[in-house]
Amino acid sequence: MPDKTLAELNSCSKADFVAALANIFEYSPWIAEQAAEARPFAGVTQLFEAMRLVVEQAAPGRRLALIKAHPDLADKTRQGDELTAESNAEQNSVGLDRLSEAEYAAFDRVNNAYREKFGFPYIVCVRRHTKDSILRDFARRLPNDATAEVATSIAEICKIAALRTDLLVSGEHPLKVHGRLSTHVLDTHSGRPAAGIAVELTELSDLGTSRVIAQAVTNHDGRTDVPLIGGRPVPIGRYELTFSTGSYFAARGVPLSDPPFLDVIPLRFSVSDPEGHLHVPLLVTPWSYGTYRGS
Amino acid sequence: MPDKTLAELNSCSKADFVAALANIFEYSPWIAEQAAEARPFAGVTQLFEAMRLVVEQAAPGRRLALIKAHPDLADKTRQGDELTAESNAEQNSVGLDRLSEAEYAAFDRVNNAYREKFGFPYIVCVRRHTKDSILRDFARRLPNDATAEVATSIAEICKIAALRTDLLVSGEHPLKVHGRLSTHVLDTHSGRPAAGIAVELTELSDLGTSRVIAQAVTNHDGRTDVPLIGGRPVPIGRYELTFSTGSYFAARGVPLSDPPFLDVIPLRFSVSDPEGHLHVPLLVTPWSYGTYRGS
Amino acid sequence: MPDKTLAELNSCSKADFVAALANIFEYSPWIAEQAAEARPFAGVTQLFEAMRLVVEQAAPGRRLALIKAHPDLADKTRQGDELTAESNAEQNSVGLDRLSEAEYAAFDRVNNAYREKFGFPYIVCVRRHTKDSILRDFARRLPNDATAEVATSIAEICKIAALRTDLLVSGEHPLKVHGRLSTHVLDTHSGRPAAGIAVELTELSDLGTSRVIAQAVTNHDGRTDVPLIGGRPVPIGRYELTFSTGSYFAARGVPLSDPPFLDVIPLRFSVSDPEGHLHVPLLVTPWSYGTYRGS
Amino acid sequence: MPDKTLAELNSCSKADFVAALANIFEYSPWIAEQAAEARPFAGVTQLFEAMRLVVEQAAPGRRLALIKAHPDLADKTRQGDELTAESNAEQNSVGLDRLSEAEYAAFDRVNNAYREKFGFPYIVCVRRHTKDSILRDFARRLPNDATAEVATSIAEICKIAALRTDLLVSGEHPLKVHGRLSTHVLDTHSGRPAAGIAVELTELSDLGTSRVIAQAVTNHDGRTDVPLIGGRPVPIGRYELTFSTGSYFAARGVPLSDPPFLDVIPLRFSVSDPEGHLHVPLLVTPWSYGTYRGS
Repeated sequence: MPDKTLAELNSCSKADFVAALANIFEYSPWIAEQAAEARPFAGVTQLFEAMRLVVEQAAPGRRLALIKAHPDLADKTRQGDELTAESNAEQNSVGLDRLSEAEYAAFDRVNNAYREKFGFPYIVCVRRHTKDSILRDFARRLPNDATAEVATSIAEICKIAALRTDLLVSGEHPLKVHGRLSTHVLDTHSGRPAAGIAVELTELSDLGTSRVIAQAVTNHDGRTDVPLIGGRPVPIGRYELTFSTGSYFAARGVPLSDPPFLDVIPLRFSVSDPEGHLHVPLLVTPWSYGTYRGS
Repeated sequence: MPDKTLAELNSCSKADFVAALANIFEYSPWIAEQAAEARPFAGVTQLFEAMRLVVEQAAPGRRLALIKAHPDLADKTRQGDELTAESNAEQNSVGLDRLSEAEYAAFDRVNNAYREKFGFPYIVCVRRHTKDSILRDFARRLPNDATAEVATSIAEICKIAALRTDLLVSGEHPLKVHGRLSTHVLDTHSGRPAAGIAVELTELSDLGTSRVIAQAVTNHDGRTDVPLIGGRPVPIGRYELTFSTGSYFAARGVPLSDPPFLDVIPLRFSVSDPEGHLHVPLLVTPWSYGTYRGS
Repeated sequence: MPDKTLAELNSCSKADFVAALANIFEYSPWIAEQAAEARPFAGVTQLFEAMRLVVEQAAPGRRLALIKAHPDLADKTRQGDELTAESNAEQNSVGLDRLSEAEYAAFDRVNNAYREKFGFPYIVCVRRHTKDSILRDFARRLPNDATAEVATSIAEICKIAALRTDLLVSGEHPLKVHGRLSTHVLDTHSGRPAAGIAVELTELSDLGTSRVIAQAVTNHDGRTDVPLIGGRPVPIGRYELTFSTGSYFAARGVPLSDPPFLDVIPLRFSVSDPEGHLHVPLLVTPWSYGTYRGS
Repeated sequence: MPDKTLAELNSCSKADFVAALANIFEYSPWIAEQAAEARPFAGVTQLFEAMRLVVEQAAPGRRLALIKAHPDLADKTRQGDELTAESNAEQNSVGLDRLSEAEYAAFDRVNNAYREKFGFPYIVCVRRHTKDSILRDFARRLPNDATAEVATSIAEICKIAALRTDLLVSGEHPLKVHGRLSTHVLDTHSGRPAAGIAVELTELSDLGTSRVIAQAVTNHDGRTDVPLIGGRPVPIGRYELTFSTGSYFAARGVPLSDPPFLDVIPLRFSVSDPEGHLHVPLLVTPWSYGTYRGS
């Protein structure tokens, strides 16, 4: 639940405004200070855009300082220590607090290689990513020149700030920073939505271990009661969604082969647009199935 | 390639006939001896049926002796030693020579529990099975009574003998002991068979490690040049067939998301009829796919 | 728009109540008169159930009189003349005012055969039917005995009355007398909802001419802005829904054969549950398509 | 059945050779005369190519004379009269002998408009077309200039000649002038090929009446015993293939709605490549179906 209402932020003292928004941009209260001049804001989006404008119009030195104020990704030695609470929670969300040794080593290489080349830390909005997609993003960005990386870092910082603003402030015109991943099972053997099917969503990882991130059972409408992922960005990455259709049809007395031709059906797909609505349905009989990217 | 022609077996001396077929039934040349009386045979199937008739009409004591002549499954201490060459090759085909410690322990428990209850070894036609399905078969059979298990053991011995006969003897009326597993990829984005798609078939295992058992690339007709499994029974078990469709569409210049929504598509299914023809096709676009049990 | 609010009916004089509801049951104001005693009603459904109870508890003679108060279906000689306005509108809704000579003759045979056997007119809730399904319903009911047909006629009269009540009275707890027929086009070639596809719904007829009953163009979500049929029962019958996908793909520059393999795609289906929600989607590429009964 | 073998044509007198092939090119025996010099031919294709070469190398005046030797399409006054037997049979194959008055008028307009502009008749290889596609072809060609139309006419004459050669002469290297249209019904409700489904193929016509051109019942493999169209070109045009799946599922005791959601399923598609292999399968349950262009 957001802590602050936009109304409060519009009407409080400048000092309180700055204090409330201090950590939207890492260790950089000057952004909220300047944005305060533009009060009142018609909505949360307008508040955020005012802060973004301050960042965009800042002198190069300040922009670089803003970048340098960010922590290294997955820096074990600082965790729970010097990180802002916001950074800590974000890095944990993507599993950066549960890295295997191989993963930790990979992230460490990334950080060091990047910092060595550019002189500032590698910054990415981790809530929009999985571990794999962070390493992929890094591999793409490392060959860039410094000018490009300053611009990209600022853009990522603004994405981080937008998500922090959305978490902190409630009000009109909310920021469009949430995506949704949903499913739907249609039993085309009986012509009805398939109720009672166990569904499991796994985030796949090339490097480390895959992890189950959602489990649900379909309701009478063949859907899950809540989206598999919702109310936040859907992290860029690879996923596997499994459906226990064999036990579903067996429980309905449908004649099956032994073992059943289809038992647990996996759909493997990638997410590329964290703010989009991705619907991955399953049309299924005991002998056939299909899926498609819906919306 | 079979070693013997039916014509040879029909015309040779009885001693040569018996010698040639000695190991069709494990350590039991009396079966070939009696079957020799029925020569000449019109076909391989008729030859096999004559041997089966001898087994069926044998006295209970002889039938039990036939059962007891068989080795324990996965008995490490006897491998490469006291096993007939045929038993050895069969057990290796299913991977019984590459058991993990956990698997070996499981098979050992099976053998001992079964032998303790019935006084004879657990016999199953391993060429028709995967490791998982053997353990499943065992779990079903252990609660049976001895009469039922003698009958089942004889039936399994006859399945083993049929496969050995098929391997050994060529001629008219071959035995119907082969199944087939095939696939076909149709690109419904371009309306053509999908050529050049990498396909990989993995035998899944609950207990031990899954293993890749076939790899192929689709030809201009969207098929593999040879069936994924053919010329032998398709072992009962669970499989995963994967198709590298992401690189296929990327190579054709089709606009994709990044990462591609679908990259490597897995189809997970079970085989229940080792002698059947199972066709598992894939209909695919970059945004949708479907499959069904074809024939 | 309903003419009366439930509040008005709950508070007006009994005479006004009876007058307002006089034609809910054809020429039978006694039903409203008795139901008035149960005022006030918590909702429209409760009002209707009170009237239904009166009908159910009426003496056999009164029930038969209620049945006999109904007009013959498609009786040309009475149209616009002795029919109640409600009967007239209902019969027109199903196209009974636009019968071909062959259809008129068929309906006339139905009426006469039924009246001759039972001594009362054939009654069916026409808003829930197409011309074809009425003739099919008739063919099923004609072999019944009189007791069954009295019961069926009363049940149909109540369905007619429920729809008339729904049209006339607004208020809490509306009657569940509406169904919905909707569609959705997903372009699985581009992985997006298909916008701008011309859709046409035709009611099929074995006997007479089929007629187009809805036309629409899909919006940016691949749906029609309003359901193809909604806010009323979806008449039992056979339909064809066509989608102009050829021009859609051509306009997007997708390579097609000449003429295009798929141009106007017909989906032919039947409606069996007039109060249900029937969703008939199309998943389509230039070379493939699929549909299913959704909800 | 072809009348002549290639061996006969290779070894007979030149006069007999010319006589046998006289009508391959309409009223133009000089082509066979010149081609005879190239004997013997390794195959039917080589024989045909020799004749084509004669046509290609002929002087412009001879080429024009060849064009002018052809009859008008659908010229009622000449039918059964001055037409060669070959022309007559070809024009009948496409239904030009069964034109409605509207169709006859349309074809008459085509012929006259074309002849008036170019001074020679409109020529098209009718066995590769339906009535609709001929009128479409005409509408495309009429705006051309004379040079283009002479080339197109010669090309069409060669297509006609290839089909006549294929009908007349048997031997090695047959001409590739045949296409195939086939279907296959897979019952994904039971996971088996659907046997016993009535299938009907209709050639659609915008101008005149559509006509049923093939009827079949699927066999145990879900296929028709012979292709719907085979052993000849598949005429360019629009088709509707219907499958009586409602009665199939009803006969198997599958629970259906009343009336069944799907009863007779139409697939409407076009043929663009008369010499291609077009496979139009149906995957079907009582509540869903799909199709795709297969090969």
